[in-house]
Amino acid sequence: MHLFISARLAWHCEGPTDILLQIEAAASAGQQVISSALESTPAGHFARVPAQDGIGERIWLHQEGACTVTYKAEVEVLRQVTLLDTLAALPPHRLPGEAVPYLMDSRYCPASRFSPFVDAAFAAFEGGAKVCAMAAWIGAHYRYVPGVSDASTTAIDSFVERRGVCRDYAHTLICFARAAAIPARFASGYGAKVKPQDFHAVAEVWLADADGVGDWHVVDATGMADAASFARIAVGRDAADTSFLTSYGNAHLRHLGIEVRTA
Amino acid sequence: MHLFISARLAWHCEGPTDILLQIEAAASAGQQVISSALESTPAGHFARVPAQDGIGERIWLHQEGACTVTYKAEVEVLRQVTLLDTLAALPPHRLPGEAVPYLMDSRYCPASRFSPFVDAAFAAFEGGAKVCAMAAWIGAHYRYVPGVSDASTTAIDSFVERRGVCRDYAHTLICFARAAAIPARFASGYGAKVKPQDFHAVAEVWLADADGVGDWHVVDATGMADAASFARIAVGRDAADTSFLTSYGNAHLRHLGIEVRTA
Amino acid sequence: MHLFISARLAWHCEGPTDILLQIEAAASAGQQVISSALESTPAGHFARVPAQDGIGERIWLHQEGACTVTYKAEVEVLRQVTLLDTLAALPPHRLPGEAVPYLMDSRYCPASRFSPFVDAAFAAFEGGAKVCAMAAWIGAHYRYVPGVSDASTTAIDSFVERRGVCRDYAHTLICFARAAAIPARFASGYGAKVKPQDFHAVAEVWLADADGVGDWHVVDATGMADAASFARIAVGRDAADTSFLTSYGNAHLRHLGIEVRTA
Amino acid sequence: MHLFISARLAWHCEGPTDILLQIEAAASAGQQVISSALESTPAGHFARVPAQDGIGERIWLHQEGACTVTYKAEVEVLRQVTLLDTLAALPPHRLPGEAVPYLMDSRYCPASRFSPFVDAAFAAFEGGAKVCAMAAWIGAHYRYVPGVSDASTTAIDSFVERRGVCRDYAHTLICFARAAAIPARFASGYGAKVKPQDFHAVAEVWLADADGVGDWHVVDATGMADAASFARIAVGRDAADTSFLTSYGNAHLRHLGIEVRTA
Repeated sequence: MHLFISARLAWHCEGPTDILLQIEAAASAGQQVISSALESTPAGHFARVPAQDGIGERIWLHQEGACTVTYKAEVEVLRQVTLLDTLAALPPHRLPGEAVPYLMDSRYCPASRFSPFVDAAFAAFEGGAKVCAMAAWIGAHYRYVPGVSDASTTAIDSFVERRGVCRDYAHTLICFARAAAIPARFASGYGAKVKPQDFHAVAEVWLADADGVGDWHVVDATGMADAASFARIAVGRDAADTSFLTSYGNAHLRHLGIEVRTA
Repeated sequence: MHLFISARLAWHCEGPTDILLQIEAAASAGQQVISSALESTPAGHFARVPAQDGIGERIWLHQEGACTVTYKAEVEVLRQVTLLDTLAALPPHRLPGEAVPYLMDSRYCPASRFSPFVDAAFAAFEGGAKVCAMAAWIGAHYRYVPGVSDASTTAIDSFVERRGVCRDYAHTLICFARAAAIPARFASGYGAKVKPQDFHAVAEVWLADADGVGDWHVVDATGMADAASFARIAVGRDAADTSFLTSYGNAHLRHLGIEVRTA
Repeated sequence: MHLFISARLAWHCEGPTDILLQIEAAASAGQQVISSALESTPAGHFARVPAQDGIGERIWLHQEGACTVTYKAEVEVLRQVTLLDTLAALPPHRLPGEAVPYLMDSRYCPASRFSPFVDAAFAAFEGGAKVCAMAAWIGAHYRYVPGVSDASTTAIDSFVERRGVCRDYAHTLICFARAAAIPARFASGYGAKVKPQDFHAVAEVWLADADGVGDWHVVDATGMADAASFARIAVGRDAADTSFLTSYGNAHLRHLGIEVRTA
Repeated sequence: MHLFISARLAWHCEGPTDILLQIEAAASAGQQVISSALESTPAGHFARVPAQDGIGERIWLHQEGACTVTYKAEVEVLRQVTLLDTLAALPPHRLPGEAVPYLMDSRYCPASRFSPFVDAAFAAFEGGAKVCAMAAWIGAHYRYVPGVSDASTTAIDSFVERRGVCRDYAHTLICFARAAAIPARFASGYGAKVKPQDFHAVAEVWLADADGVGDWHVVDATGMADAASFARIAVGRDAADTSFLTSYGNAHLRHLGIEVRTA
């Protein structure tokens, strides 16, 4: 699927400020960046550094005053929607080094505390079918309520309050998967069908195909994106790693506009 | 400094269990593993995978029943004790990709919440001197109380209750440093002067020397270890990444004995 | 039902210490104290003050060194086991002043956060039947695990981890009831059928009979006690109000022995 | 001091809703209500019930649609500003029954966790002077930032983030006092000098005068009110008990206007 992505951000820095951006679709597994353009107000410093797992780049800006960034890209998503039910979980002792960190508890995903619930609720399922059951459970029990979560909301908060936005759905699914010893990471990105249009977030789980080959697979508990319609920006343990804009200094977001079209 | 390390762990697995071990001193910057031997009860599976930041290895075991592991090593620590006061913090926009993830909040280190405190308490200091002041503050205000923290204790708990063990001292220092935009990671390891002898934990902060070259530097807010007497096992965001033994299944630790001698 | 209660506590005070005790069955609605004897090691000060809601008394002791208290009582529980299903919830605006505080969030019962869950899970039930459904849900989803909770464990922790002891079962039920606008308080006491024998805790909910007369009714989500076999010591918002022993100073519990027999 | 109080609230109930109001200055110790008038849009039900500690009343309304309440009162505050330094803390074992509940942890005031900090930071002071030192510490270390706290913000959050509004200042002071075994409760009310004008909150601590007679004394860590310029509405364990408007059903606050003048 072809995605035509357009993003525009504006913010104001009171005094010289360092800004960390993660807004570009990453040249990475399952997607190809056909064309891409990033324009920003002049910055005293502009640098790119590799992001998590070697997927995409983080951009450092050193700025002051009113700033804007415009990003336009054409991305071809090559992934097919896989039936997760056909995939298996590897036993933990067969997990490769790259997957192991995604078994661990993280800022918003204190996964180990969910073990008793996960053991009880999803005992009937294995592997990819278990992940599907988890995503379905969240979809059935959570209410999508824009604005209820903030930078301190963890999966425990969401689980108790049974509501959230895409980040909270993803955090909960990541907790559930990790509690079942299935590596799970957080992916920020662009989704063609996300309504209202905004940055989106999904979970990626490490599952093996019929030949026992492990790989990351997209799952979206909100149901608004799937592997074929999602262009990844960045991955991480959870939302703490993939914020689209982080400021070191005093910056205020003034505008955020996202548009994703397909063709 | 030469460390002669000896560690013995015993545990019991009820039924087939996957075990993840991180107990070996890592061949990594500032330390050289002269000799090393790991002996374990026979396991159905034994695999090594690279650990965080390419430092050391994680060991996967698949086992059942009574298990023991004995680890003996001779490690030469080549690091000198650096006067942190002579080091500078890089402005965030000059941080390399490898350091950036260690600015982010993590499971036990919700650093961003400490910003107002850090801004107020350490405003008089910069760079390495700021990190020293942070470590000194923790040393002066915390009481070292074995047994008060568990797997759910975050730096917020420790900060409010003003007490903890090495992991909690390290978590707090990591929060303080990150809140001041200084990358900080958690390192587990062996310390020659740790009393009572046990696995130890310190913080590592990313600071630059007089030539502007950044590197990780050991800081121990407990004062029990320093760069020259600490042999690193593993690094990570916080204690969630460096547990010496994690079980997937039902395992119970029966014995833990550590001995570190110097020569 | 007649309960013959015997309790013995021993503790050690390092230096002069104030101790607050709540261990005596209270002369209160639904139970009659036939006989009662409390013996303690000599204390520099011994005073009784009325406890919460005028139910029972708190005892202040000022002591030093080794202390013991022995309590023996014969209590007739006059309450019958009421079929809660036959009782109704009053609309909030008809609740009397004494019940209103028990709608509020408290230390271990942040009830308002459970509203979405409670609205969804128990929508099919009203009044006493709703409370029964809540207690049954907890009984079905929680595992009784001695030792997993401590003085910082809230109903949120228990709800996520799906386990606890009597205090945690009661806290969860109290949250559920308050989230449905049914006043609920915490009661500590003695239960004839509690195994292993120990102090026990249940919830009490404010429901109305066929004539619209409201009163407190015992519910025990653990199933170990019922209205007819439970002798109340004290009531409160939650466990924070009803601790059997609180020390102001440095005291260590050395022994706790409870025996409850029926005749 | 004479306070002329005027408050106007407007809200909208989607469907029949029960509303609990606590907005009237209470006829209670240290203040006299000279005149008072409460006008509301017609309600299907209007009832008054006694509030906490017999101080003031809670009002139950059963309503639908657009609702307003206007409250006007003239209150004479008879309290003088006491120099807290001249007051003593009673040893816990001399505390009366009415004060004991205010030693306990509550929803927003998990006081016992602050013991190590309080022991260390305020060891040099006793009784009323200790409470003054606590209030001064908060005033010096906290920043007053409207909007940063919400219904889930506890004193731990405020203590870590070093900021808040009047409720957070009061919660922190209450924690500190209770951790020093000084009973402390939360009081909502009207303050003549509060800027911007709004409902206000202070702490009340139980201290004894030169004759050993205990009583509640107002302390305001924000410095915006004092005993002589504060008209109490309600008291409670913390903000959970004294909300000016609680809805059971779906209500949205549309307007809140407070005006307090002196003469």
